[in-house]
Amino acid sequence: MLKRYLPILEWAKIYDRNMLSSDLIAALIVTIMLIPQSLAYALLAGLPAEVGLYASILPLIAYTVFGTSRTLAVGPVAVVSLMTAAAVGNIAQQGTDAYVLAAITLAFISGVILILMGVFRLGLLANFLSHPVISGFISASAIIIAASQLKHIFGVEVSGHNLLDILLGLSKQPEHINIPTLIIGISAITFLFCSRTYLKTILLRMGVKARLADIITKTGPVLVVIITILATWIGDLENQGVKVIGDIPQGLPSLALPQFDAEIWQQLFISALLISIVGFVESVSVAQTLAAKRRQRISPDQELIGLGASNIASSVSGGFPVTGGFSRSVVNFEAGAETPAAGAFTAAGIALVTLFLTPLIFFLPKATLAATIIVAVLSLVDLAALKRTWIYSRKDFSAMLVTLIMTLLQGVEIGIIAGVGLSIFLHLYRTSTPHSALVGRVPGTEHFRNIDRHKVDTQKHMLTLRIDESLYFANARYLEDRIYALVSLNPAVKHLILMCPAVNLIDASALESLEAINARLKDSGVTFHLSEVKGPVMDKLKRSHFLNDLTGQVFLSQYDAWQALRNTAGTASLDV
Amino acid sequence: MLKRYLPILEWAKIYDRNMLSSDLIAALIVTIMLIPQSLAYALLAGLPAEVGLYASILPLIAYTVFGTSRTLAVGPVAVVSLMTAAAVGNIAQQGTDAYVLAAITLAFISGVILILMGVFRLGLLANFLSHPVISGFISASAIIIAASQLKHIFGVEVSGHNLLDILLGLSKQPEHINIPTLIIGISAITFLFCSRTYLKTILLRMGVKARLADIITKTGPVLVVIITILATWIGDLENQGVKVIGDIPQGLPSLALPQFDAEIWQQLFISALLISIVGFVESVSVAQTLAAKRRQRISPDQELIGLGASNIASSVSGGFPVTGGFSRSVVNFEAGAETPAAGAFTAAGIALVTLFLTPLIFFLPKATLAATIIVAVLSLVDLAALKRTWIYSRKDFSAMLVTLIMTLLQGVEIGIIAGVGLSIFLHLYRTSTPHSALVGRVPGTEHFRNIDRHKVDTQKHMLTLRIDESLYFANARYLEDRIYALVSLNPAVKHLILMCPAVNLIDASALESLEAINARLKDSGVTFHLSEVKGPVMDKLKRSHFLNDLTGQVFLSQYDAWQALRNTAGTASLDV
Repeated sequence: MLKRYLPILEWAKIYDRNMLSSDLIAALIVTIMLIPQSLAYALLAGLPAEVGLYASILPLIAYTVFGTSRTLAVGPVAVVSLMTAAAVGNIAQQGTDAYVLAAITLAFISGVILILMGVFRLGLLANFLSHPVISGFISASAIIIAASQLKHIFGVEVSGHNLLDILLGLSKQPEHINIPTLIIGISAITFLFCSRTYLKTILLRMGVKARLADIITKTGPVLVVIITILATWIGDLENQGVKVIGDIPQGLPSLALPQFDAEIWQQLFISALLISIVGFVESVSVAQTLAAKRRQRISPDQELIGLGASNIASSVSGGFPVTGGFSRSVVNFEAGAETPAAGAFTAAGIALVTLFLTPLIFFLPKATLAATIIVAVLSLVDLAALKRTWIYSRKDFSAMLVTLIMTLLQGVEIGIIAGVGLSIFLHLYRTSTPHSALVGRVPGTEHFRNIDRHKVDTQKHMLTLRIDESLYFANARYLEDRIYALVSLNPAVKHLILMCPAVNLIDASALESLEAINARLKDSGVTFHLSEVKGPVMDKLKRSHFLNDLTGQVFLSQYDAWQALRNTAGTASLDV
Repeated sequence: MLKRYLPILEWAKIYDRNMLSSDLIAALIVTIMLIPQSLAYALLAGLPAEVGLYASILPLIAYTVFGTSRTLAVGPVAVVSLMTAAAVGNIAQQGTDAYVLAAITLAFISGVILILMGVFRLGLLANFLSHPVISGFISASAIIIAASQLKHIFGVEVSGHNLLDILLGLSKQPEHINIPTLIIGISAITFLFCSRTYLKTILLRMGVKARLADIITKTGPVLVVIITILATWIGDLENQGVKVIGDIPQGLPSLALPQFDAEIWQQLFISALLISIVGFVESVSVAQTLAAKRRQRISPDQELIGLGASNIASSVSGGFPVTGGFSRSVVNFEAGAETPAAGAFTAAGIALVTLFLTPLIFFLPKATLAATIIVAVLSLVDLAALKRTWIYSRKDFSAMLVTLIMTLLQGVEIGIIAGVGLSIFLHLYRTSTPHSALVGRVPGTEHFRNIDRHKVDTQKHMLTLRIDESLYFANARYLEDRIYALVSLNPAVKHLILMCPAVNLIDASALESLEAINARLKDSGVTFHLSEVKGPVMDKLKRSHFLNDLTGQVFLSQYDAWQALRNTAGTASLDV
C-alpha cells in the first residue's frame, strides 16, 4: 500500500554514488534549460515571472516522492499555461492579485482532481481524448500561443484567447510597434530556429558527441537569454521602450493556501478538469516514451497522484498548474538522469536561482522569452497530421478538423469539448450499424459463411444472422430493424438463429431488444434461437428472464442448430 | 423516390371496401377514446383544451400520407405533453397567448428536426437513448405527471415541473381543497382503476368476446367523462368551486404559421430535439410491436418523416407536439384498423366533435381529466425495472437510477441529458478495458488458447497477446499499458505478437498507439508482429505508414507466426 503511493521507497533504497553523480549532471543541465522556460510560461499564462520559478521548485520535489517515471521533468508547460490564461482570464483581470490567486487556486483544484482520479483509478478518463482530438488541439493551441506572443515581439498591447481576437488586436496598432523590441525578437527567433535546425549538424561536424550535441542544441535559449540581457543592459534599451522582466522578488516563495471560495471553485472546476486531463495525457505519453527506451515501467494511476501532488505543491508555494514537459524530460533523459532525484536537484537549482540570481535577469527582454516560446511551440504544430488522418479515416479527420478550428476560433475549452463530443458521437455512430451477415453452411463441413460471398447451403425455413459486434444500446435497435426486415421479406421463415461468436457483451438495452425480437417473432410465428454465445455473455443472460421466454433454443455451435432445425420444415431444400 | 417519401401510394392502390369498413369501425372507437385524451393532455401541457383537439386532426391526416405503420395512432401523448410544458414554461407564462404560440412553435421546430433526421437518415440518434435511460425517464415522468395532476383533484393552484416543487406546492395549501372537486376526482380515479383491473374479467364472464372486452375496457374514460359532465351539470357543481373545461371555441382551427423568431427558436431548440427523439423512440417501439403481429414492416427513417409531417401539421393548425400513442394505437389495432386511412377517419371524427359537440363538454370537470391522466400514466411507472436491471447489470442500473432521480428532482430535460451522458460514459468505460489474454499453442494443433485456462505450449522469447475487442480511442492506451507491462515483466521477450481475430476496427487513436508500441518496443529491442488481422482492417492499415515502420511482420494465422518465430531464440523451451 505504502509502496503503491510512494514510489520513492522503491528506488531510494538502491540509490548509490553513481546514480547521484548522473542525476546531478542531468539536474544542472535541466536547471539551465528550465530558467527561461519557467519565466516564459509564466508570461504566457499572464502571470508575474517569479510565479514560473515558484512552479519549478516544490512541484519537482513532490514528483520525486510520488512519481513513477524515472526521468520525467515536471514544471510549467506551454499548452497548460495557455489553458491557465484562458481559465483565469474568465474570472479576473490580468495584472491583479485576484488573477494570481485564481491561478494558484486553479493549480490546487487541478491537483485535487488528479489525486482523486489516481485514487479511484480513473486514469481511463484520459482515454476519452482521442488522438485526433489531442493532435488538433495541440496544433491549434500552439498556433494561438505563437500568435499571442507576437505582441511581445512587436512591443504592443493585445489581449484575447483565440486566434481571431489576437490577430484583430495586432492588426489595429501597427503604429505602436517598438523597433528595438522587434529587432531583439526577430534576431532571437532567427537564432533559435537556426540553432534548432543547424547547430547539431555543426557540432557533430566539430566532433562533439551526438548526445552532447543534442543537449547543447536544446539549451540554446539560454545563450539567447544571456546575449539579449547583455545587449539590453549595455545598450540601455529599456529606455528605448524595450520591455524587460524587471524586478523579481528575491527569495523563496512563502507557503500559503489557495482560495477556498465555493463560487471560485465552481467557476474553475471545468477548466481544472480539462487542464488535469490534458496535462496528464501529455505527461504520460512523454513518460511512457522515455520509460520504454530503458524497459522501465510507469504506472498511469500513480502518475495521476504524482502530478496531483506536484500541482498541490505548486499551489501552496505560489505557483500555477504544472505537468510533465516534453523537451525538458528528453534533455533530462539524455543528460543521463537515473532517478527522480534529478528532479529534486533541479528544484534545488531553481531555488538557488530564485534566491540569488534574479537581479541578473532584470534586463531580460520579454521579447526574448516570447521568441523562445514561439520557436518551442511552432514545432508542436503538425498540420500534416490532417492529411495523414484524412487518408486513414474520414471520421477521425473530421474530429481533428473540428477540434482544430473550434480551438482556434472559440478558445481551448470549447475546442476540446467540441472535439471530445464529436469523437464520442462518431464512435457511437460507427458502431451503431454493426457488421452482420446471413450465413449458410459450407457444403459437407461444419463451417458457416456469408451467403453473399460463398457458395453455401441454406434452407428456406431457417435464416441465420451472424452479428460481428457486441450488442449495446447504440446498435440494439439496428438489430431489431434488421431482423424484422429479414422476417417480413422471407415469409417462408419459421426459425431465426442469431449467431453470436463475436458478441462480447449484451447490455440491458440489447437484452430488451432481444426480448422484443423474441416476442414479436413469436407473434409472427417465427421461433428465435441463439448460437455460439460466449460463456460470460451466457452467464449474464441466465440472470434475466430472457432464456425462460425464449421461443427457441441456445445452441452451443451453429452446426448443432443446423442439425436440430434442418428437418423441421418437412423438406430440406437448397435456396438462398 | 416518391414511394419512399409517400408510403400512402403503396396501400392506397389496393384499398377496397372491406378495408374501408374495418378502418371506419376502428376510427369510431379511437375517436371516442381520443376526445378525453386530447383534452387531458392539452391540460397537462398547460394549454387550452381546444389545442388538444386541434392536435388530433391535421396531424393524423399528415401521418396517413407519410407514415409507414398501418395502425399507429398519433396525437398528443402524456410524456411529450409534460416535456412541452417544461420547455414552454421556461419562456412564457401559462395562460398567456405567448405560451400557446411557443407550444405551436415548439411543434414546428420538432417537425423540422424530425424531417431532417428522416431525410439524412439520422434515426440512429435515437439509439443514444439506452433502454435503462428511457425506462427511468418514463417512470419518473409518469410520477411527475401524476403529481402535477393532483392539484386538479384537490382543486388548488400549484405550478412546477419537478416532483419537489409540485409536492411542496401541494403541501402548502391544504385549506384550499375543494371538497366537491375532490369527490369527483377520487371517484373517477377509483372507477378507472377498477374498470382497468376488473372490468375485462367481468365482461368476459358476461360472455363478451375478448377483443371487444379489451376495447370496452380501454374506452372506460369516456363513461367517466359522460357521468361527471352530467353530475356537474345537474348538481350545478360549477358554482360550488368545481373547475370545468368551460367554453371551447367552436369550429375548426384556422391555418397559421408559427413564430419565426431566431431567439425563440434558439431557446426551444434543445427541448424540441429531446421531444423529437423521445417521441420518435416511443412511437417507433409501438409501431414495431404492432407491425410484427401482422408481419408488416415499418421504416424507421420514413417514420421520422411521418412524425415530422404530423408535427408541422399540428403546428400550422394551432396544435402542440404530437407522436404515436401507445394505448390508442393498440385500440386502433385491436379494433381492426387495416390502413392508415383509419387515422384520417379519426381526424374527421375529431373535426366533427370540434365543429358541433364542444358545447356538450362545457361542464366536464378538470378533475375528471386529471383522473384519466393519473390512471393512464401510473401504468407507465415500472419501478420493478430497477430491480431487474440491478440483477442484470450494475452499470445499466446506475444509468437508470440516475435518470430517474435527476428527472424527478431536476425535471425532464436535465434528467434525460444526465442519463444519456452517463450511459455513454459507462459504455466507453466498459469498453476501455477490453478482454485480452496471453495465448499459447494447444500441443500438437494449430489452435491457440488462453495460457491461464489451458495447458498450452509457450516460448520464453515470444509473447502472444490476443485482444477481443475493436481498438479505438477509449481502449488504445489500455493496450499500450498492457503491452509495456508485459514487456517489462518478461525481460527475455524478443517478439511480441498481437493476435487480432476479434478486432473489427482500428481507429486513428489506436493506430497511433500501435505506432507508439512499435517504436517503443523497438527501443526495448522487441520485435512487434500482428496476426489474424481481418481483411477490412488490413486494407485500412495499408493506407497508413504503420506497416512500413512495423519492426516485425503481419501473419495470416497465429500458427504461421508460431512457425516462423519459434526458432528465432536458438532454443525452443516450454515455459509460461
